[in-house]
Amino acid sequence: MTKAELIAQIKQKESFLCVGLDPDLAKIPQHLLQTEDPLFEFCKAIIDATHPYAVAFKPNTAFFECHGAAGWESLRKTIAYIPNECLIIADAKRGDIGNTSAYYAKTFFEHMQADALTVAPYMGSDSVLPFLQFENKWVILLALTSNEGAKDFQLVEANGKALFETVLEKSAAWGTPDNMMYVVGATRAEDIARVRALAPNYFFLVPGVGAQGGDLDTVVRYGANAECGLLVNSSRAIIYASSGLDFAVAAKKEALNMQAQMALHVQRFEW
Amino acid sequence: MTKAELIAQIKQKESFLCVGLDPDLAKIPQHLLQTEDPLFEFCKAIIDATHPYAVAFKPNTAFFECHGAAGWESLRKTIAYIPNECLIIADAKRGDIGNTSAYYAKTFFEHMQADALTVAPYMGSDSVLPFLQFENKWVILLALTSNEGAKDFQLVEANGKALFETVLEKSAAWGTPDNMMYVVGATRAEDIARVRALAPNYFFLVPGVGAQGGDLDTVVRYGANAECGLLVNSSRAIIYASSGLDFAVAAKKEALNMQAQMALHVQRFEW
Repeated sequence: MTKAELIAQIKQKESFLCVGLDPDLAKIPQHLLQTEDPLFEFCKAIIDATHPYAVAFKPNTAFFECHGAAGWESLRKTIAYIPNECLIIADAKRGDIGNTSAYYAKTFFEHMQADALTVAPYMGSDSVLPFLQFENKWVILLALTSNEGAKDFQLVEANGKALFETVLEKSAAWGTPDNMMYVVGATRAEDIARVRALAPNYFFLVPGVGAQGGDLDTVVRYGANAECGLLVNSSRAIIYASSGLDFAVAAKKEALNMQAQMALHVQRFEW
Repeated sequence: MTKAELIAQIKQKESFLCVGLDPDLAKIPQHLLQTEDPLFEFCKAIIDATHPYAVAFKPNTAFFECHGAAGWESLRKTIAYIPNECLIIADAKRGDIGNTSAYYAKTFFEHMQADALTVAPYMGSDSVLPFLQFENKWVILLALTSNEGAKDFQLVEANGKALFETVLEKSAAWGTPDNMMYVVGATRAEDIARVRALAPNYFFLVPGVGAQGGDLDTVVRYGANAECGLLVNSSRAIIYASSGLDFAVAAKKEALNMQAQMALHVQRFEW
């Protein structure tokens, strides 16, 4: 998917919502456990219910991998089921030496046909570049994550510059706003502003709104650019809105609620 | 596997060799492509040929994942086939927010029954701690990797301290030498010495000897401690020693050659 196509979707749906798919057998409605492929059936119902309000879906590979080969097949089916107009983000946080990263890239971009992959930057340029060799595919590089542990390294300053700022600066030479985005957590408004200052033209994938405590208006105020530049992810607040038979209806209501808030912002962007 | 059990193996086999399993369909002997599960058949033959000379095997998940669900089944079978006395390292470089890391830990420690997992530190404490909650299982945390890109972030200094040194210092509060090791590349002798100075009692998993240019004697000189404290990995130099029908024999010869060099060092450790 190109950046222009993504922006067209944001305009059309008046939404920059990404729905995170973290299917957990302990949390999904228990009646689904009787089906042949509960992970896929759960994701399918969530996708059906929420795709009119979302421009992206983000399956989290950990929740599929823990079921082995069967889980990988559920992941493949889930990715294949996501409507074409939505950006498909495999949230896998991969990254390794060059020849290994090239295999991870093949896995997610060719075998799975995801549009985008989250990538960890610790191993540097040659661990990230292999993911950037695929046309119309995206690297979403971890810059500033939403968890407590972000303080341990990402926020450690060297010569007045935090590690996440060094990541932004160096990685700007690897990709462009047309094939790279950044993960920027929603939990610290002032930090979102720092990232936006350094990366004015990039899209940010923003986790941490909802269950993790981030606030949508703050994220837009400090993180948006003239082309929106945001994909705001919500996982648990949407997919586990209800654990009953009405889970898909409840998920739809939550997604619609987020989309309605987002529409107010979308109408104000200077397209 | 406990540290005492690992050390007993090192003494018994007079080896601290880890064989990296990176099965690549483009490189494995072509006659194996006729079998039902070429990835597994290749790894099985390599394990059979080299296990007398190795104390650890390190399957690299990327090379299995790129074949989807079938590849994951090959990985599971490969891990199950590795003899019990060898440390099984799933080289997966995972790391995510806490609840996601917990699922990755289940995947590799419970579903796959690996003994150890490589983990990326970028997301900090709460991304690593879930992997440390399993008895007799190991986190092998990326500290200083063997690739060029290590310079981009790991070697960036802040107040006279490189990022990899901050990783060593902070992570010492998360794990112990009984459940955590570090990845320390073999390509820069002076850096191996810096890591050893900061982490005197930890085992290091050392990639980069052989195909990547590192030298065994240098690694031992700068990286060993009184309990050995080293697992030196070799992947391509062993598993692709020959691409013909004799690949397992050639792998055995290479592994034996490494073990023979290692034996001279093992005999000198002050056990």
